Amino acid sequence: MNGPIGFEIRARSGVCNARTGVVSTPHGTFQTPAFMPVGTKGTVKGILPAQVEATGAEILLNNTYHLLVRPGPELVSKMGGVHKFMNWHRPILTDSGGYQAYSLSDTNKVDDDGVTFKSIVDGSTIRLTPERAVEVQNLLGPDILMALDDCPPSIDPNVERPSQARLESVVKRDSGGLSARGARRSAYDHIARLDLANERTVRWLERCIRAHQRKGDQGLFGIVQGGTDLDRRRWSAERIGALDCPGFAIGGVAVGESADDIARIVRFTAPLLPDSKPRYLMGVGYERDLYEAVRAGVDMFDCVLPTRNGRNANAFTTNGQLRLRNAKYADDPSPIEVGCDCDACTPGPNGHFSRGYLRHLFMADEMLGPMLVTIHNLRHFQRFMADLRQTIASDHWSTFTTRWPVALGRAPEIPSK
Amino acid sequence: MNGPIGFEIRARSGVCNARTGVVSTPHGTFQTPAFMPVGTKGTVKGILPAQVEATGAEILLNNTYHLLVRPGPELVSKMGGVHKFMNWHRPILTDSGGYQAYSLSDTNKVDDDGVTFKSIVDGSTIRLTPERAVEVQNLLGPDILMALDDCPPSIDPNVERPSQARLESVVKRDSGGLSARGARRSAYDHIARLDLANERTVRWLERCIRAHQRKGDQGLFGIVQGGTDLDRRRWSAERIGALDCPGFAIGGVAVGESADDIARIVRFTAPLLPDSKPRYLMGVGYERDLYEAVRAGVDMFDCVLPTRNGRNANAFTTNGQLRLRNAKYADDPSPIEVGCDCDACTPGPNGHFSRGYLRHLFMADEMLGPMLVTIHNLRHFQRFMADLRQTIASDHWSTFTTRWPVALGRAPEIPSK
Repeated sequence: MNGPIGFEIRARSGVCNARTGVVSTPHGTFQTPAFMPVGTKGTVKGILPAQVEATGAEILLNNTYHLLVRPGPELVSKMGGVHKFMNWHRPILTDSGGYQAYSLSDTNKVDDDGVTFKSIVDGSTIRLTPERAVEVQNLLGPDILMALDDCPPSIDPNVERPSQARLESVVKRDSGGLSARGARRSAYDHIARLDLANERTVRWLERCIRAHQRKGDQGLFGIVQGGTDLDRRRWSAERIGALDCPGFAIGGVAVGESADDIARIVRFTAPLLPDSKPRYLMGVGYERDLYEAVRAGVDMFDCVLPTRNGRNANAFTTNGQLRLRNAKYADDPSPIEVGCDCDACTPGPNGHFSRGYLRHLFMADEMLGPMLVTIHNLRHFQRFMADLRQTIASDHWSTFTTRWPVALGRAPEIPSK
Repeated sequence: MNGPIGFEIRARSGVCNARTGVVSTPHGTFQTPAFMPVGTKGTVKGILPAQVEATGAEILLNNTYHLLVRPGPELVSKMGGVHKFMNWHRPILTDSGGYQAYSLSDTNKVDDDGVTFKSIVDGSTIRLTPERAVEVQNLLGPDILMALDDCPPSIDPNVERPSQARLESVVKRDSGGLSARGARRSAYDHIARLDLANERTVRWLERCIRAHQRKGDQGLFGIVQGGTDLDRRRWSAERIGALDCPGFAIGGVAVGESADDIARIVRFTAPLLPDSKPRYLMGVGYERDLYEAVRAGVDMFDCVLPTRNGRNANAFTTNGQLRLRNAKYADDPSPIEVGCDCDACTPGPNGHFSRGYLRHLFMADEMLGPMLVTIHNLRHFQRFMADLRQTIASDHWSTFTTRWPVALGRAPEIPSK
């Protein structure tokens, strides 16, 4: 390896594109496929860094947008960078801030040079160009930073986005009539916007690479766009993948598509990215999505599901999610999941935390409920990834979905007793 | 010892009434003087039981009122009692529920047989008699339960409570005139209410003792009342202290008095209680209050200060509280207190949590802020109590207030750097 980010593939499946490996960074290594807990504002909500580590997480993600608007990258830099600031000594990846700039602001404006948006903290106007996005991440100091990409909204606020099938049918034929013309215009507009985003994303990555000031201790990943259109995904993957980055991400997924659409895009796109570099599927997802993506050759993931759902009393199990506010759990003495080795489920000197107790905590609005289910959910995802890594190494896939039925779909809530 | 609660005094000061000892319960022992963290609704807010234990706490308190209104004592009993329910294997003490019945409801009605109030959860009418208060605590299953007492409000909602000096002056002379008559009537009313509360509290304790169904594995403490009037405190201490309880509490303190008043009442009352049984000062307090009370011969304390103030960004130090939202801490790299061995202040693989980071967490409304300062504050109070126990054993008091200047008063906020 020449740069600060290395990737060594340790094992490959013979029946699918899955591989296991180790990514090395200035703050140590992490095994792949890896699931990164999301520490939005410099903290994984409701859990101490040592507890995050105890779940098995070896790398986490911070959101540049949130740290940009508060406390600001200059302060984080002054405090020694994001590792020291949040007291996490293992690898950190930051996104570029672009996604939140698009999604959290009603009034963002994108042009060829960047995106302008209003801060959700104080309403001030913030300008993010490729150069500033990199500068901010150079100040924050993660091991891996992400290029600013143009991620067009999945659903345009003014124009309903056509489905892939409708898009193709509308583009291929002109059926005449006013509403058909409208649909056709929408579809053409959408395609034009996708093409523009694709081209901009390549130009912006080139600018990010030039702007990157800490090439010795930070690696910059590029991001593939292209929406749900496979030709555009191929165009983007080929252009982005040709640039000099230590890893590449698949972006613009998990912005509203079905699980089937996600799998279709990922199965198509992942193999187009350089085999020797880690592939990162941004913002995904449920266990089924992770399972499909790992089999397609993806190495890294992040998602707010375990933490966000945990705070909302939804606990992940191998069979699906438990909604712990449900009255049927009021007197249920069992742990969230028998056999789980997380600090919520493992018996201590006085037993485990019961579903009945957890329900009480959520009904009484007590912090300990979100804290415990966050611990459990993060451990659930780490156990899932660890089993996937073992399964890739052994290439014995047949029993995986027996251990993790949830990998076959979003199973309904399981019975409580 | 005959009952489930034993008390062995290990050392006595030769210069004050302080003593150290060990209280034994069905769930193990705790050293005295002891500070009990408050786990209102069956959880110490924002901290896992194992973390509470790691702060050095050996016993904690649950509020009967809160567990009575939700999830209800029958459910807690069905789930195996409050130890198993909240997953805390060491001793637990519950209060009687009376204090919250008086203080949380605008519409409570006290009569000779008990108190009637509306639930803060669903507005339903709840009746607490001495018998029901004991039954509820028999169901909850703590090691130590408290008798229902009549705790008259420190400040009557309709009649401003006269100061002790004014009370005495008004009672002793009749200065004539309308406003003086009003003051005198208020004072007489207040004294009548104190006397009534005192007498009721004795009768109710006798009823609680008779009603107690788990004498084999739970100890029932009586509570001394009497307001700020020392004669009435003596009357109550003599009557209550003569009854067959394994320990006694001083109640009706820390309901609005000055630190001097608290010290005056405690110094007078504690020695009136049986020497051979643990003395518990309810709801107190700041370090200065604890210091004075320990020197007066008090053995047990509970207070929400470390947890409540911690959630509000106020961190206790040996020199006073830091208000961590203060802008001056924004770029302060130091821990809350150098030398503190709590999980927030102790350097880990990547340093400690800085004041600057903690301020960021509070400004960003992140759970981790309350969690970390709760851990620190609880450890602060446990370190304070451990030092007091050592100081009693060695009887070297002169250096104690050098190590803990805060024990001499509520010191102003210390400089940040």
